[in-house]
Amino acid sequence: MTSQPCVVGLDFGTESARGVLIGAADGEILAVHRIVYPHGVMSESLPDGTPLPPDWALQDADDYLHAAGEILRRLSEAAVAAGGHIAGIGIDFTASTVLPVTAQGVPLSRHYPQHPHAYVKLWKHHAAQPWVAEINDTGGEFLAYTGGETSCEWMFAKAAQLRSEAPGLWAESARFMEAGDWLVSELVGAEVRSTCQAGYKAHYLDGAGYPSEVDTLIPGLRERLREPTPIGEPAGELAPAWMDRIGLTRPPVVAVATIDAHAVMPGVGVSTPGTLVATLGTSAGYMLVSPDCRRIPGIGGVVRDGILPGYWGYEAGQAGFGDLLAWFVRTFPSGEDADASFAHYNRAAAALPPGASGVMALDWWNGCRTPLIDPELSGVFVGMTLQTTREELYRALLESLGFGMRRVVDTLTEGGLDVDELVVTSGLAEKNPFIVQLVADVTGRDVRVPDVQEATARGAAIHGAVAAGLVDDFQAGAAALGAQRTRRVLPVDSATVRYTELYGLYRTLSRALVDSDVMPALRRLRGATGRP
Amino acid sequence: MTSQPCVVGLDFGTESARGVLIGAADGEILAVHRIVYPHGVMSESLPDGTPLPPDWALQDADDYLHAAGEILRRLSEAAVAAGGHIAGIGIDFTASTVLPVTAQGVPLSRHYPQHPHAYVKLWKHHAAQPWVAEINDTGGEFLAYTGGETSCEWMFAKAAQLRSEAPGLWAESARFMEAGDWLVSELVGAEVRSTCQAGYKAHYLDGAGYPSEVDTLIPGLRERLREPTPIGEPAGELAPAWMDRIGLTRPPVVAVATIDAHAVMPGVGVSTPGTLVATLGTSAGYMLVSPDCRRIPGIGGVVRDGILPGYWGYEAGQAGFGDLLAWFVRTFPSGEDADASFAHYNRAAAALPPGASGVMALDWWNGCRTPLIDPELSGVFVGMTLQTTREELYRALLESLGFGMRRVVDTLTEGGLDVDELVVTSGLAEKNPFIVQLVADVTGRDVRVPDVQEATARGAAIHGAVAAGLVDDFQAGAAALGAQRTRRVLPVDSATVRYTELYGLYRTLSRALVDSDVMPALRRLRGATGRP
Repeated sequence: MTSQPCVVGLDFGTESARGVLIGAADGEILAVHRIVYPHGVMSESLPDGTPLPPDWALQDADDYLHAAGEILRRLSEAAVAAGGHIAGIGIDFTASTVLPVTAQGVPLSRHYPQHPHAYVKLWKHHAAQPWVAEINDTGGEFLAYTGGETSCEWMFAKAAQLRSEAPGLWAESARFMEAGDWLVSELVGAEVRSTCQAGYKAHYLDGAGYPSEVDTLIPGLRERLREPTPIGEPAGELAPAWMDRIGLTRPPVVAVATIDAHAVMPGVGVSTPGTLVATLGTSAGYMLVSPDCRRIPGIGGVVRDGILPGYWGYEAGQAGFGDLLAWFVRTFPSGEDADASFAHYNRAAAALPPGASGVMALDWWNGCRTPLIDPELSGVFVGMTLQTTREELYRALLESLGFGMRRVVDTLTEGGLDVDELVVTSGLAEKNPFIVQLVADVTGRDVRVPDVQEATARGAAIHGAVAAGLVDDFQAGAAALGAQRTRRVLPVDSATVRYTELYGLYRTLSRALVDSDVMPALRRLRGATGRP
Repeated sequence: MTSQPCVVGLDFGTESARGVLIGAADGEILAVHRIVYPHGVMSESLPDGTPLPPDWALQDADDYLHAAGEILRRLSEAAVAAGGHIAGIGIDFTASTVLPVTAQGVPLSRHYPQHPHAYVKLWKHHAAQPWVAEINDTGGEFLAYTGGETSCEWMFAKAAQLRSEAPGLWAESARFMEAGDWLVSELVGAEVRSTCQAGYKAHYLDGAGYPSEVDTLIPGLRERLREPTPIGEPAGELAPAWMDRIGLTRPPVVAVATIDAHAVMPGVGVSTPGTLVATLGTSAGYMLVSPDCRRIPGIGGVVRDGILPGYWGYEAGQAGFGDLLAWFVRTFPSGEDADASFAHYNRAAAALPPGASGVMALDWWNGCRTPLIDPELSGVFVGMTLQTTREELYRALLESLGFGMRRVVDTLTEGGLDVDELVVTSGLAEKNPFIVQLVADVTGRDVRVPDVQEATARGAAIHGAVAAGLVDDFQAGAAALGAQRTRRVLPVDSATVRYTELYGLYRTLSRALVDSDVMPALRRLRGATGRP
């Protein structure tokens, strides 16, 4: 019997890394392994006790090497036990999660373990916010592809903070890299960056490259970057040192890295235009591909080869989704624990017709991402009477999440893109089928819910399969290795009619509150009392 | 020893009547007696079981006679036991609480006990709402004194409903009367009406009388009314039949009736311009007197001799006050019972600095009375984040009640009236001293909290004392028989500065939401689902 080729998807999340081993012939999961990062997220102090200021979030790059080695070793053993071998590896990673390294790729934290700026700045490191304004103020053409603004979570602001606050470390760094790119480079023994990370987090533009404005803003940054390679391409074969460490005899091909959220699309079996992939978690992420380049106001990411090669990738999101419901249940508990409260509220909400509460919410508890790109916006409930119940407030909050989603869909379609259907992947959807019906009714579109395990790591594995040539392309990879079964939910026309009326009011209410400027003013007055 | 003169105040409320016996020399309460109306509030059926439609609220006029007789008999016994006698009687009553009677003053319900329209329509009978629009549409000059609108709770709408739905009963009625006026007339044996009721509830204008527009709208109504007598005037001596029934030998003087809310002003010891009397209960009522007539947009009642004789009386209000806090505690309980929840929330709210929650509310759960006069407005919370606690929401709700109050004060002062200080009477103030400090801080004015028992019935007794000539006038009566001690609470300047900033945002938010028209639209959509 010959050894069957397998692929590995490595999903580097915020707290841990997960790996899946998949048979390249049938897409079956043969093994899963997870490693929690030994240093986790460092937000209060370094390992030596050095305290960190507010809004910092760091990681130790060596944790990634540790996790990659352990997972690959265990999955290789599993492959052998199943009569196979690892032929391809794909890696997805949080972003923008960045670190300064030497010319040899050594993280500066190995040399300066006592210095906060030597470590990886995790995506949710928000302390670079003060550098955002000067980047936006350039008004550069590059901003037209990210909704007119950069973000404190992205690479430029983080690099600017490092250069400004730790010029010595900046001078010692030869490269500034996304952690996903750095890990891939470590695995293959050569620097290889990704169009996905470069495009979505470092304003890299197809044709134009990194924006020239950066030379004035952050002198020395461009020389610390490199041209990216399109996703799906092989970054190289696994380097001999890793082969020894893991115990492999045949070198697998490692794919160019991708962002974790973007790996989901092939993982759920989607590889063509017209299908909006929605990942509904604590926040909501949306991905769509199109052969056409459209610069759409309010869409924060438009990147060639950013999600699937050969297409323009569009990224949008709601800054809060499941975390709003969790806030509600935490703030107004109605049962013994959160699960009991959710069960109660979900059941009660599902029993109400649309708009029956007379209450409307704006889903901005965590700010608004698409299309307003404004973290200073905040949550709203309007329409309460002395008869209003907390179940009605919960229902209004659910509806507001649907209206926020419809606004994402409308922003994309008004910008000239087609959205024919939605594919929704969410732990929420399993616990609360009402949410899926709400999505269908509010958007007026068919919704498919894929029956899939490990959608993100599976997507990374498809990147590995494409790079290793085990499948012809992402279309073939998504068909063979992505989700095989989906449940289809159709919109109920009468509900769509009613929601459309309510959505008109949601838009009116949004405009009235944004124009009033009350939300940022309340935030300033709160800050003046010494509260965060 | 000669018999000492005493005065009685009779306070006819919604569920019961209360009487107090007060020594005319020192204002001490000698006795209190209360009678619950045998038929209570009839909102579902008549005594014979005849069902009532929604929004109806009736009473049986004979309950008032029963209560008056019992209370006067018991208080007279108490007066004799104390070595005194009843020399004056003052009566306050809910309004507009109206009934059709024969030329002899017999309530039609005695002849037609099976007919709903034969009974007293209580102030909170709301089934006359359909007749409001046609009264408003006259655009009559008389509406300029009531903020541009009549109310379904007032006399015209209730008369129009009776005439329209029960023309036979209308034809049999010779008079249409406020219950307070009817009771006074019964007690003295002659028809005597009050400038307070006529002005505030039947659009009677000093000089112009009842509006002529009413002849087209409700033909026959004006002939069923009579010119009113100024409050504080004697209506007459107690009629012989009542003397016998109660067991009196010397006839006391009975004062012209007044509205219950308006009796409070002298009861709390206020009798001059510049002091705004605030009654903070489930809703909030405000009274102010001035020698000047000002027609102020948003002020729903401007009546000569309406609160104190010789002055223009101004009436304003917040449609919800304590009932908003009760809603919050009922909807989001945090303790074993409502008291425990209130204690928790009040303590937590008092510990926060103004504006520290970053959340703002609009106090419109029950609509807005002054100055917007719009029952279709509804409650709002703005500014929530994922860190917002329910205690912060409660604090924001409390603050909104303060801002609503400041808006009442500003409406009066911008209309040309002086508001130098506030006198606050409230059960809430005793339970929650924080509210009183909030009133002082938000309005930037001294607040006095009178230490007084039975403020309303005591105010009625002062009407009786004035009418009987036991005191020279209301000023002397309020000084001698009104509240003798008050606690003074001063505004904290730094808090007033902060609240003034927040109040600016409250005004901005109010305007944004009113202009958006979202609230009535949400109400219509809720109604379309079949919900009330």
